[in-house]
Amino acid sequence: MNSSPLIDQLIAAFRCLPGVGPKSAQRMTLHLLGKNRDGGKSLSDALANALQAVGNCARCRTLTEEDTCRICASVSRNHKLLCIVESPADIFAIEQAGTYRGVYYVLMGHLSPIDGVGPEQLGISQLLDKVKNEKPEEVIVACNPTVEGDATAYYIAEQLKSFDVLVSRIAHGVPVGGEIEFVDGSTLTHAFAGRKPIGGS
Amino acid sequence: MNSSPLIDQLIAAFRCLPGVGPKSAQRMTLHLLGKNRDGGKSLSDALANALQAVGNCARCRTLTEEDTCRICASVSRNHKLLCIVESPADIFAIEQAGTYRGVYYVLMGHLSPIDGVGPEQLGISQLLDKVKNEKPEEVIVACNPTVEGDATAYYIAEQLKSFDVLVSRIAHGVPVGGEIEFVDGSTLTHAFAGRKPIGGS
Repeated sequence: MNSSPLIDQLIAAFRCLPGVGPKSAQRMTLHLLGKNRDGGKSLSDALANALQAVGNCARCRTLTEEDTCRICASVSRNHKLLCIVESPADIFAIEQAGTYRGVYYVLMGHLSPIDGVGPEQLGISQLLDKVKNEKPEEVIVACNPTVEGDATAYYIAEQLKSFDVLVSRIAHGVPVGGEIEFVDGSTLTHAFAGRKPIGGS
Repeated sequence: MNSSPLIDQLIAAFRCLPGVGPKSAQRMTLHLLGKNRDGGKSLSDALANALQAVGNCARCRTLTEEDTCRICASVSRNHKLLCIVESPADIFAIEQAGTYRGVYYVLMGHLSPIDGVGPEQLGISQLLDKVKNEKPEEVIVACNPTVEGDATAYYIAEQLKSFDVLVSRIAHGVPVGGEIEFVDGSTLTHAFAGRKPIGGS
């Protein structure tokens, strides 16, 4: 580009965002500099503040600027019900659904030895300590239904066998509102295997 | 959301980017905070620096951190050839094509009275002064082929009538590599109207 170094640097910096290619990065840069400088200032400040203050919750490892996140600190949540998820985004989705009232534990990834992610990176020993000390009645494993997620769920279930706790996994099946015609074979297999008598719970 | 205020603020701040909705903003936020803090720091710094230093070129109004942009300051460009574009992004595209060797003038928009954008906002008087003082041989109007762009091009051509300068507009027609089958009627009409003898220039 024959443009200015600062603009080129900003375009390059925007490329660190997920799903942003060279054209989008250029569009974002020119939009903020040309048309929305206040928005750009807010973004720069909010990003600097969040990076400086946000760390991980001491109890569930999710992202928060406090020692303990709001969910872990809440007395209205059921602390005997523990849901294990791969990322804070999963918590957002489950909270938006609005029916789960227990607490969470965030792995911040899934087992992936090829990327150097083992039980240590996922905080499995911290999880085992938590189960040992807090004695939840049920641990719900909500890892993604992918090869790595399945392996992670299986590994966690194995590790929790020695504790007196019910370990469950969320159901896989046809999504609500989905059409069976367009559902893949693997999901349909799960849906058939997990079928329930009508009127059953 | 039941998450932290700083994270919510950052998600809201990302929404000022073009093409970024609530889901993408959340994904960007969690990606930077969870997986790419260095990238986030670079983005925050690059954005703050660019917002602080980048202004408009005194000669062509494009975005630059210097008084005069690199194109206007270059002695290897043809300063007798002036191309009028709507935005700095258009300069990026034309420079990438790599054949135009003249200089530019950026309107930073198009005439749109309903949004309060008139000749003054587009710097038309500064453009007329520039044509008067620098006496270019040709002014190429490269406004977008939209209703507003056409109106802007027509207005500029009218304003330049009193000067001894050739005013031209870039050709509209079937895009190179495009298939005629999928080209819209208006473009085809332009393509037929602008037809040239084979072998002609």
